[in-house]
Amino acid sequence: MMRSLDLNCDMGESFGAYQMGSDAEVLDYVTSANIACGFHAGDPSTMHRTVRMAHARGVAIGAHPGFPDLQGFGRRAMHLSAAEAYDMVVYQVGALAGFAQALGARVHHVKAHGALYNMAAKDLALAGAIAQAVHDVDRTMVLYGLAGSLMIPAAEKLGLRAAGEVFADRTYQDDGSLTPRSQANAMIDDVELAIGQVRRMVEEGLVRSVNGHDVPVRADTLCIHGDQPNAQLFAKKIVAALKQSNIRVEAFR
Amino acid sequence: MMRSLDLNCDMGESFGAYQMGSDAEVLDYVTSANIACGFHAGDPSTMHRTVRMAHARGVAIGAHPGFPDLQGFGRRAMHLSAAEAYDMVVYQVGALAGFAQALGARVHHVKAHGALYNMAAKDLALAGAIAQAVHDVDRTMVLYGLAGSLMIPAAEKLGLRAAGEVFADRTYQDDGSLTPRSQANAMIDDVELAIGQVRRMVEEGLVRSVNGHDVPVRADTLCIHGDQPNAQLFAKKIVAALKQSNIRVEAFR
Amino acid sequence: MMRSLDLNCDMGESFGAYQMGSDAEVLDYVTSANIACGFHAGDPSTMHRTVRMAHARGVAIGAHPGFPDLQGFGRRAMHLSAAEAYDMVVYQVGALAGFAQALGARVHHVKAHGALYNMAAKDLALAGAIAQAVHDVDRTMVLYGLAGSLMIPAAEKLGLRAAGEVFADRTYQDDGSLTPRSQANAMIDDVELAIGQVRRMVEEGLVRSVNGHDVPVRADTLCIHGDQPNAQLFAKKIVAALKQSNIRVEAFR
Amino acid sequence: MMRSLDLNCDMGESFGAYQMGSDAEVLDYVTSANIACGFHAGDPSTMHRTVRMAHARGVAIGAHPGFPDLQGFGRRAMHLSAAEAYDMVVYQVGALAGFAQALGARVHHVKAHGALYNMAAKDLALAGAIAQAVHDVDRTMVLYGLAGSLMIPAAEKLGLRAAGEVFADRTYQDDGSLTPRSQANAMIDDVELAIGQVRRMVEEGLVRSVNGHDVPVRADTLCIHGDQPNAQLFAKKIVAALKQSNIRVEAFR
Repeated sequence: MMRSLDLNCDMGESFGAYQMGSDAEVLDYVTSANIACGFHAGDPSTMHRTVRMAHARGVAIGAHPGFPDLQGFGRRAMHLSAAEAYDMVVYQVGALAGFAQALGARVHHVKAHGALYNMAAKDLALAGAIAQAVHDVDRTMVLYGLAGSLMIPAAEKLGLRAAGEVFADRTYQDDGSLTPRSQANAMIDDVELAIGQVRRMVEEGLVRSVNGHDVPVRADTLCIHGDQPNAQLFAKKIVAALKQSNIRVEAFR
Repeated sequence: MMRSLDLNCDMGESFGAYQMGSDAEVLDYVTSANIACGFHAGDPSTMHRTVRMAHARGVAIGAHPGFPDLQGFGRRAMHLSAAEAYDMVVYQVGALAGFAQALGARVHHVKAHGALYNMAAKDLALAGAIAQAVHDVDRTMVLYGLAGSLMIPAAEKLGLRAAGEVFADRTYQDDGSLTPRSQANAMIDDVELAIGQVRRMVEEGLVRSVNGHDVPVRADTLCIHGDQPNAQLFAKKIVAALKQSNIRVEAFR
Repeated sequence: MMRSLDLNCDMGESFGAYQMGSDAEVLDYVTSANIACGFHAGDPSTMHRTVRMAHARGVAIGAHPGFPDLQGFGRRAMHLSAAEAYDMVVYQVGALAGFAQALGARVHHVKAHGALYNMAAKDLALAGAIAQAVHDVDRTMVLYGLAGSLMIPAAEKLGLRAAGEVFADRTYQDDGSLTPRSQANAMIDDVELAIGQVRRMVEEGLVRSVNGHDVPVRADTLCIHGDQPNAQLFAKKIVAALKQSNIRVEAFR
Repeated sequence: MMRSLDLNCDMGESFGAYQMGSDAEVLDYVTSANIACGFHAGDPSTMHRTVRMAHARGVAIGAHPGFPDLQGFGRRAMHLSAAEAYDMVVYQVGALAGFAQALGARVHHVKAHGALYNMAAKDLALAGAIAQAVHDVDRTMVLYGLAGSLMIPAAEKLGLRAAGEVFADRTYQDDGSLTPRSQANAMIDDVELAIGQVRRMVEEGLVRSVNGHDVPVRADTLCIHGDQPNAQLFAKKIVAALKQSNIRVEAFR
């Protein structure tokens, strides 16, 4: 069986007169678009435009729900009840689905944003609320979550398909978690090392931790940071490297 | 053929800690619920609760999109482009549909709120944008609009079913429009007169204008004001009167 | 020297069409009004009306800044940087001061709201940011904070006057903190016991903890919950009891 | 007496993670900064940063209140009552004044933004509400308004100082109003013509209308569009031209 990897990227993060990201360019090389839904970023018109662009290019359309905190860009932790989180996700996924339906498309996946993503990775009640929301709106959608985090079992417990997300430019701990950005060795700046890490994650299902141990990891989808200056170049290199290794680049099925 | 009339009411207008309306009571006697979608009123948790209540009682679930103006409760005119209005309606209808799907229900109709409703009644571009949004998300939904206004032809032009909304407690002008509230004779305070006006609108398709002329009007759905102290009593009386006249009270089909 | 106690109450919490509280009634018996500033509750018109009412009755006008979370009413914890908290407080206090100036009044004190109040009580960086904001806008303002919490030293370190807030209907722990509401013995339902607790806090500077120990407490201002059904009655009783004990009821100086 | 002209520019329009404008550069050549106050743009932290930068450079600090419409950037007409407009302006000016006070500065002027500016130019009730708000918060502030519009008499009626704003790159009608942007001859693209128009407005108090008539105009302050690519270059040229004509460039007194 041929191995494959999905490249996903957050987009649709502009808001009114405020421009963010270069979605049109990024859409040329990713296979999944996580589209902001108006809470932490995005607005109805931006969502419409972004869904249309992704659909036209055959990129899988994903909802990217976040905390209701535009000023903090959804990056500030907020403590909501599980019921509030559930409702917040249903609302945002539904809103994006409205645009997908209007354009003859469908929402393929859901990936939580920012602080919601990070908190849900470690909080089973929150992870369960998000998974339940996705399940209830449309159980054929895929839930993207941090590989090795609580998001994955939370989704699978409900019979949802889950995609484990990995990072090329972040180092891993012995337990498979990401090294916190506050630590000096959190980032991988060398592009070749980053590509090597991805290749091994896909081919062998392993990542070398900062302590030198081989740690199992499930690499279904790779996070591309569209806001980085060299995003496009990096994406091209990774696509070329994956091809060389006979790994197909396509949306998670 | 037996005549019928729909009784619709705005609801789901609470927001966070702020309570508004008595939805549980109102749902006992209306046949259509217009549920706020988080822009002028309502929040995800209120939407969830309201959709569940309406669905449990067999009341038709409707989206009630409004301007993004919580402080003004959607009652202040805002000048958006037709494209912005379209996107705003797709977003709100989609968000409500998320809750309907999660509960095994569906969105039966859409009714614009407040200033959006009033402006669209007289502005064909705005009416067309709203109708197009409803059409594109799900063309089986019904669009509720002021009887005799531009909303009706805007919907029908696209092949949408449109329901003409009438008022029991408002007087009409010779051209079929409502007498502006700023005028002394705008309201009908006498319950018997109000009921008589409704009965005649349904049975004969006519309303007596303030100038004494008989004006044609299409009465598909009657607006019930849930926030009035005597709403429940009035609703009971009108239901009894309609039954006596052999008019069925049911959601618009 | 005659002892005195301030009675403070949160108000101005209505928002647009949403009514909350009965500010006009509450203003008749409190001496300090903590007025919401538009982030967790309140809007410019509500602020204007509330400042005018408080000023007309000679009640001390206070700013009541909270997290930017209208849906959560400022009760959901949000993790902001100290700089963001500082800016958020300057903004809200300044906005309220605008209305005070317009009405020939002044802002007498600042009390943080909800989750911001609770978090700052235990987080010195957050408490310091709030105190610094108050200090920088107008160092003659008083900062109200939970008696015994970090808010008090944070204020005093900057030379601000701080008022220790106590509760009549809450029990205390051995360390002077409030018993969490999650515990069975958190509330004092008996009005006489509640009044007795307040009287002793003012007269002796002591409160009997849930474990039977006498704990020192600084009672400068008593929190009145305006949203409780018996608020007015309770306030009358406490005022009468304080008078009997020769304790003056007046705004904190 | 030496003539003078103020150069004002809107700034502080970033919001959270969203960057807009190049305030640091613009501050080098303008004499008045109109700082967004969080309704149509700006947030507390952006306001803090912008006030600090303007104060450090000796640029006059102005409040730039707008409609509560972040998505529309305050450019969409909203119909508020005069009382709502008054309250909205007091709130925003007060909030900015909080930062000015915290930094030992003061708010020198107020200029309404976008749709609020345009609507107030033609609506005396709205203009009066804005002027009254400015007057009530601090009557020593200057109100900037479109030269020849209703804003000027509305301010002066209350004893406020008003500054007539003119445009270098816009043509004028016979009645002194700006040619609507929808018309082909609305803009002046030629920099020399634009500079000539400004110079004549300051020196002679006249502008040549699109119909070739000389129309009186009061040029107290010139609007610089900081978001245009050639803003800095244009500003340099205009400053040089004004110097040559012995016109002092300084904040309106």
